[in-house]
Amino acid sequence: MASIFTKIINGELPSYKIAETDEFFAFLDINPNAKGHTLCIPKKEVDKIFDLDEETYMGLMAFSRQVAKAIEQVIPCERVGMSVIGLEVPHVHVHLIPLRHMEDARFTTKDTLTPEEFKAVATAIQAALQ
Amino acid sequence: MASIFTKIINGELPSYKIAETDEFFAFLDINPNAKGHTLCIPKKEVDKIFDLDEETYMGLMAFSRQVAKAIEQVIPCERVGMSVIGLEVPHVHVHLIPLRHMEDARFTTKDTLTPEEFKAVATAIQAALQ
Repeated sequence: MASIFTKIINGELPSYKIAETDEFFAFLDINPNAKGHTLCIPKKEVDKIFDLDEETYMGLMAFSRQVAKAIEQVIPCERVGMSVIGLEVPHVHVHLIPLRHMEDARFTTKDTLTPEEFKAVATAIQAALQ
Repeated sequence: MASIFTKIINGELPSYKIAETDEFFAFLDINPNAKGHTLCIPKKEVDKIFDLDEETYMGLMAFSRQVAKAIEQVIPCERVGMSVIGLEVPHVHVHLIPLRHMEDARFTTKDTLTPEEFKAVATAIQAALQ
């Protein structure tokens, strides 16, 4: 069965899309640790990051770096953190999280955004990517 | 002033070393979230990961992947997670954490190891890297 992320890539589930290439896709985490929290994923459906072939892994890391630099430009934060955990959705995803303080890295507290706020954040990050 | 990690690289502070190349260094986190928790760092002292030049960043990601695959071979866990936060030590470090459950990714609970246990873990990961 297709993962929830494959359904997002295919447009079967909605998302606030940030960027897309032939191999990778970035969109806002709908339950963000902090405003601007973004997920970068390979279109290839693989469960664990270190099981990705080296080329896809390196491509995902390069793609994530570009997205992170765009986030840093438009979301006020101390720095953008990166986490790969993957115990919940079995499809590799790199969390890029604008960190204001350590709590934002723990996945225990969440920010609430309206659909309008999500759209504005996505639009701002997209613009910084150009 | 040299960061605590530069002092570790230079041997001015002790560490349980895992691997070293011309550009990168890996050693056990002395206050681990879980047994086998390892830090991978560039020798170049840069504060924020996304401020690394692209070549060093990509090299660090490739180095971290090799170390993570060795950890996975020898430390029982669900998977190896990766986190870059960096709010405490201003020298880029990639946390590789053998995750048993989500708590191991939160940096709130810590495992206690004896020096002999640290040594045994380092030796086992080193052997898996060869």
